[in-house]
Amino acid sequence: MDQSERILVNEEVVKKNKLWPNFIKAKLGFRNHWYPVMFGKEIEEGKPVKAMLCGENLLLNRIDGKVYAIKDRCLHRGVAFSKKPECYTKETITCWYHAWTYRWDDGSLCDIMTDPKSDMIGKHRLKTYTAQEAKGLVFIFLGDIEPTPLINDVPPGFLDEGRAIRGIKREVGSNWRIAAENGFDSTHVFIHKDSKLIPNNETVIPLGFATDREEEAKGTLWEVVNNEDGPKGVYDNIGQHAVPVVEGKVDGETVLRPVIGGDKRIANQISIWMPGALKVDPFPDPSLIQFEWYVPRDENSHWYIQTLGKEVANEAEEQEFEKDFNEKWEDWGLRGFNDDDIWAREAMEEFYKDDWGWIKEQLFEPDGNIVAWRQLASEANRGVQTLEDL
Amino acid sequence: MDQSERILVNEEVVKKNKLWPNFIKAKLGFRNHWYPVMFGKEIEEGKPVKAMLCGENLLLNRIDGKVYAIKDRCLHRGVAFSKKPECYTKETITCWYHAWTYRWDDGSLCDIMTDPKSDMIGKHRLKTYTAQEAKGLVFIFLGDIEPTPLINDVPPGFLDEGRAIRGIKREVGSNWRIAAENGFDSTHVFIHKDSKLIPNNETVIPLGFATDREEEAKGTLWEVVNNEDGPKGVYDNIGQHAVPVVEGKVDGETVLRPVIGGDKRIANQISIWMPGALKVDPFPDPSLIQFEWYVPRDENSHWYIQTLGKEVANEAEEQEFEKDFNEKWEDWGLRGFNDDDIWAREAMEEFYKDDWGWIKEQLFEPDGNIVAWRQLASEANRGVQTLEDL
Amino acid sequence: MDQSERILVNEEVVKKNKLWPNFIKAKLGFRNHWYPVMFGKEIEEGKPVKAMLCGENLLLNRIDGKVYAIKDRCLHRGVAFSKKPECYTKETITCWYHAWTYRWDDGSLCDIMTDPKSDMIGKHRLKTYTAQEAKGLVFIFLGDIEPTPLINDVPPGFLDEGRAIRGIKREVGSNWRIAAENGFDSTHVFIHKDSKLIPNNETVIPLGFATDREEEAKGTLWEVVNNEDGPKGVYDNIGQHAVPVVEGKVDGETVLRPVIGGDKRIANQISIWMPGALKVDPFPDPSLIQFEWYVPRDENSHWYIQTLGKEVANEAEEQEFEKDFNEKWEDWGLRGFNDDDIWAREAMEEFYKDDWGWIKEQLFEPDGNIVAWRQLASEANRGVQTLEDL
Repeated sequence: MDQSERILVNEEVVKKNKLWPNFIKAKLGFRNHWYPVMFGKEIEEGKPVKAMLCGENLLLNRIDGKVYAIKDRCLHRGVAFSKKPECYTKETITCWYHAWTYRWDDGSLCDIMTDPKSDMIGKHRLKTYTAQEAKGLVFIFLGDIEPTPLINDVPPGFLDEGRAIRGIKREVGSNWRIAAENGFDSTHVFIHKDSKLIPNNETVIPLGFATDREEEAKGTLWEVVNNEDGPKGVYDNIGQHAVPVVEGKVDGETVLRPVIGGDKRIANQISIWMPGALKVDPFPDPSLIQFEWYVPRDENSHWYIQTLGKEVANEAEEQEFEKDFNEKWEDWGLRGFNDDDIWAREAMEEFYKDDWGWIKEQLFEPDGNIVAWRQLASEANRGVQTLEDL
Repeated sequence: MDQSERILVNEEVVKKNKLWPNFIKAKLGFRNHWYPVMFGKEIEEGKPVKAMLCGENLLLNRIDGKVYAIKDRCLHRGVAFSKKPECYTKETITCWYHAWTYRWDDGSLCDIMTDPKSDMIGKHRLKTYTAQEAKGLVFIFLGDIEPTPLINDVPPGFLDEGRAIRGIKREVGSNWRIAAENGFDSTHVFIHKDSKLIPNNETVIPLGFATDREEEAKGTLWEVVNNEDGPKGVYDNIGQHAVPVVEGKVDGETVLRPVIGGDKRIANQISIWMPGALKVDPFPDPSLIQFEWYVPRDENSHWYIQTLGKEVANEAEEQEFEKDFNEKWEDWGLRGFNDDDIWAREAMEEFYKDDWGWIKEQLFEPDGNIVAWRQLASEANRGVQTLEDL
Repeated sequence: MDQSERILVNEEVVKKNKLWPNFIKAKLGFRNHWYPVMFGKEIEEGKPVKAMLCGENLLLNRIDGKVYAIKDRCLHRGVAFSKKPECYTKETITCWYHAWTYRWDDGSLCDIMTDPKSDMIGKHRLKTYTAQEAKGLVFIFLGDIEPTPLINDVPPGFLDEGRAIRGIKREVGSNWRIAAENGFDSTHVFIHKDSKLIPNNETVIPLGFATDREEEAKGTLWEVVNNEDGPKGVYDNIGQHAVPVVEGKVDGETVLRPVIGGDKRIANQISIWMPGALKVDPFPDPSLIQFEWYVPRDENSHWYIQTLGKEVANEAEEQEFEKDFNEKWEDWGLRGFNDDDIWAREAMEEFYKDDWGWIKEQLFEPDGNIVAWRQLASEANRGVQTLEDL
C-alpha cells in the first residue's frame, strides 16, 4: 500500500465530531512534545539502539554519557542504520550500505567513505531529535520547534528532587489513546476487583462510583489544568464527589461485593497529563506515586512505560525502595494489577481501530473526565503527527 | 482499515452482471433468514459461547434450557463480553469492563454496577437475536423483521417427525457461495472418483453427465421452487435427464473409468435451499439423507455444518443410527468423502475473492442448475447483509 | 481487496518523475521479454511444476524432452491445475475439478470428461507461453507478441558456444528493481568488505570509488547500449575512470582499510541488461563470469537466479568446472558473497515499497550508472506488466 493513499484517520469520522477533532486525528500522537522512549540503562555507551515513536524510526546512542537520537534511515537509499550499525568514530555513524557518514550531534553528512570526493558531503543533514535523561528515563522531543521545558510535559511532581523513580517498559497492542483512557477511566476499577494487590497490600478498591446529578451539575467531578506555562492535564475528582460503590446490584439484589484486603487507602487522586501520562497518587501503596506513560509506537501499539516514585532522603532509602520495588511493587502492582489494564486495552482496540468507535460508543456519567481529557488534548497539543511526518 | 472505506463488494462487478446482482452482493450472506450456527450440545446451561454469523459477533447462552443470543459487543466502549463473560444472575450478563448489565431475553440495560445511579439504565437495548433449536441444531434468525417460520428456511423434510439427525461442524476457508456451488455442482463428482466411500459402501458414482441439447432445451435439467410459502430452492435433475459418464475420454481414447464399489445407488436427487443448504437424497447410503449448510462466517470463511438424517421408529433405532454414524458415516462420508469438497472450495476462493471471478468464469452446460440457484438467491432473499449491519 | 481497486503503483509518484516513468510503473516487470524461471533439471518428463512470473501463475511440463508452459488457471471456475495436476495423456492436462482437458502445446480445450457433449469443446483456448531452454535454464517469453530472439534478452556472451553454465535459484523478499540496482550499484562493494571470498580466493575489492568531476563531465563513467538489434544494457565504467578507495576516512583520519586477500583482480567490467540481468566479468575468479537475473515474482519478491559461466574446451573441463562449482564457487561466491546482497535488498524494500522511495531517495555521483539503467529500462522495454495482465 502506498503512503499517499494510505489513510491514517477516517475523514468522515473527524467531520462528525465537533468537540475534539484533533484527538481523533492524533492516532500517531502529537508533535512537539516530550515522550519517554526507554530507560537510560537500556542505552550503553557507543551501542546504538533503535526505537519507534509516533510511527517514526529512531536510533539512539550514548556518547560520553550523553544520549543522542537520529532518524534511523539513511538519506541515500532509505535503509535503516540499525540493520547493521557501523560507528568508526565515537561521534559518527556510517551507513552499512554505501558508507554515508553522519554526526550524531547535528546529523550532518560529514563523509562518504565510498566516494570521498562527492559533492554531497557537508550539504545534507539527517533529522536529529533532542534527547534528555531524567529520573532514569530517556525523553525525546519529537518535533520541529525549539524544545519546550521537559517539566511542562510530565505530570507534576515527577521531576521533584528527592523522588526516586523505578519502572518497567512494555509494548502493548492498542492505540495509545485507548490506553490513556483506560488508565484515566474512573469506573474501570471494576476490572481490578480480583487483583492480588488488594489482599497482598491490605488495601481496598470500590466497584465503581455512584454519581449524583446535583454534584455533576456543579462541575466538581473533574478539573482541567490548562495554564500557559506548566503541564496541562485533567484531575479526576469522582472519588471525592461521588459515593464509592461497595455493593454490586442486579435487579435490586446484591450479587457482588468488593474484596477488602485491609484499610490502606490508595488512588486518592488520579490525573492525566499531556502528551499522555497518568499520575495515580498514591499507588499501589500509600507511600508511592505511580507515573505511567502511553507512548505512541504506531497506529495499533504503544509503549507502556510504568514507573513508581518514592520520596527518599538518602541513598540508603533509595536502596530500600529498590529492594521493595523488585520484591513487591513490580509483581503486585505494575504486573499483577496493571496486566488487567493491558488486556482491557487490547480488547477495546478492535472497536476503535477503524475510528468509528469514537462515534458509536455510548459514554455514561462517570466518563465526564475522559471527555474533558479528549477536549484538552484536542486543543492544547502542539501539533498532530501525520503520515507526512514519517 | 476503516469501515466506511472498507469495501465489501466491487461495484463495477455488480454493475456488469444483469442476472443475479444480489447474489454478487451477498458476500456476507442474507439478512432475515434462519441459519444454524452450532449444535445444541455445544451450549451448556449458563455458559455463554460466542459465534460469528454473517460477519456479526454473537454470544449465545442457555437459560433454563432455552437458548438466547445477543450481540457480543457492549454498547458503552464496544468490547466483547466473550473476552470474560460475567453473569451474576441467570437472566443477565454483566460487561467485565464497567459492569453494564443486560438481560439475555430482550437486551435491555437493566443495571450498571459501577454507577447504579446512571440515567442510562433502562434507556438502552442491546441487539438480540431469536434462537430456535431443532433436530439438535441451534438456528439464529439474523435480521430486523419478525422471524419467519423456520420450516421455510430449511430443506424439505429436515424437520420431519421421526427423522433423527446427527452431524459435525467445521470452519472452512472459502466464501459461503463458493461452498454452496461446490455442493450443488453436478459435475464436481469428478473430484470424488477416488473416494474411499465408493468401495467401503459398495456404491458407484459416475465421472459426470453427458448433456443433450434437446433435453436441455426442454428445460428439464433443473427445477426452481419459489412459492410464496415454504422453502425456496432448486432441484438438480441432471441425473435423470442426462447420461452418466462412465468412460473418461481424451482424443477419443478411454483414459479413465470410475471405480465401481458395488451397486448401491446414492445421490439420486440433489437440491439446494435458501439461505444456503443442500439436500442429497439419499446419501451416503440408500438409507440416509445428507442435509448440509454453508453458513456465512465472514467474507472468506463459512461454517460447514454437515448432518445426516435417518427415519427411525423408536429410540433403539436412533441409538443404532448413532452407532453407525460414529463408526461409519462420519468417517466415510462427512470426512472421507466431503474433505475433498473442502479443499476444492478453498482452491476456488482465490479466483472469486476479488469478485471478478463471477465475470471471468466460463460456465458450461451442466452448470445450468448453478445459474438457476444464483438467480433464485438473488431474487428470493429477504435482504442482503452489508457492512453497515455489522 | 478486489483487483479493480487494488493499486499497483502510486500514480502521484509516476507523475512526479519525468525521466523514467515506465521504470516506476514496472513493479511487476516487463511484458514481451524472456525471463528465466527455473533450471531445466527442475522439470522432469511428465511432471508439471508451477512457477510465478511477473505476478502470473504458470504451470510448466516437459513432454518428450521439450518444455511447455500454460497459465495455471482453468477457464471454467478459475482453479489452479497445480493443486492436483492430472495428466491422462502425454499431450494434455485435465483439470482436477470438472475434467476440462487442454493441450499443452496450444492450450486448446480438447475434451471435457465430465460432459463429453459440451459445446465448449474446441471453442476455448488457455493462455500458453513460449518456453526455451538454454544453458540449463528454462526461459519463458511472457507476452502477447511473436517471441523475439532469446539472444536479445540475455547478457552478451551468455549463450556463447563453449561456455558451461552452473547456478542456483532463490526467492528473495524485495522487488526485482531493488535487486537489479543493488547488483549494478558501483559503491555497494562496501557491504562486501568482510566477505570470506576475499581471503579464500586471494583477491581484493576496494571500499568504493572516488569520482572526479572532470571525468564525470566527460560522460565516461558508464555507457548505454541501445541498438535496434541485440541486447540492450548499460556498462559501468567507474572502475576504469575513478580511483578505487583503499582507505576509509572520517574527519581526515583513516578508520578502515579493505581486507587484501591477494592480488587476483575480479569484477573488472559490470553491465546490466534488459529485462533484468547482470554480467560481472570476471567473477568470482579471473576464470569465471557471473551472470545473474532478478526475475519479478510478485510486487515484493523476485527469483534470484545466479549462474557462473566458464569457457570449456571439452567434457572433462566441464566436469572439472562442475567440481569446482560445487566445492568452492557456490559456497564462496553465490552464497558467501551474494548473501550480503540479499539482505541489503530486503533492507531497501521497506523504503521503496510504497513507491515514494523513488522520489525521496538522494542519489550521489557514483549512482549515475543506475540512473542510466532506469532510463534505458523505461524506454527500451517492450511493455509494462499491469494488474490487468494477470
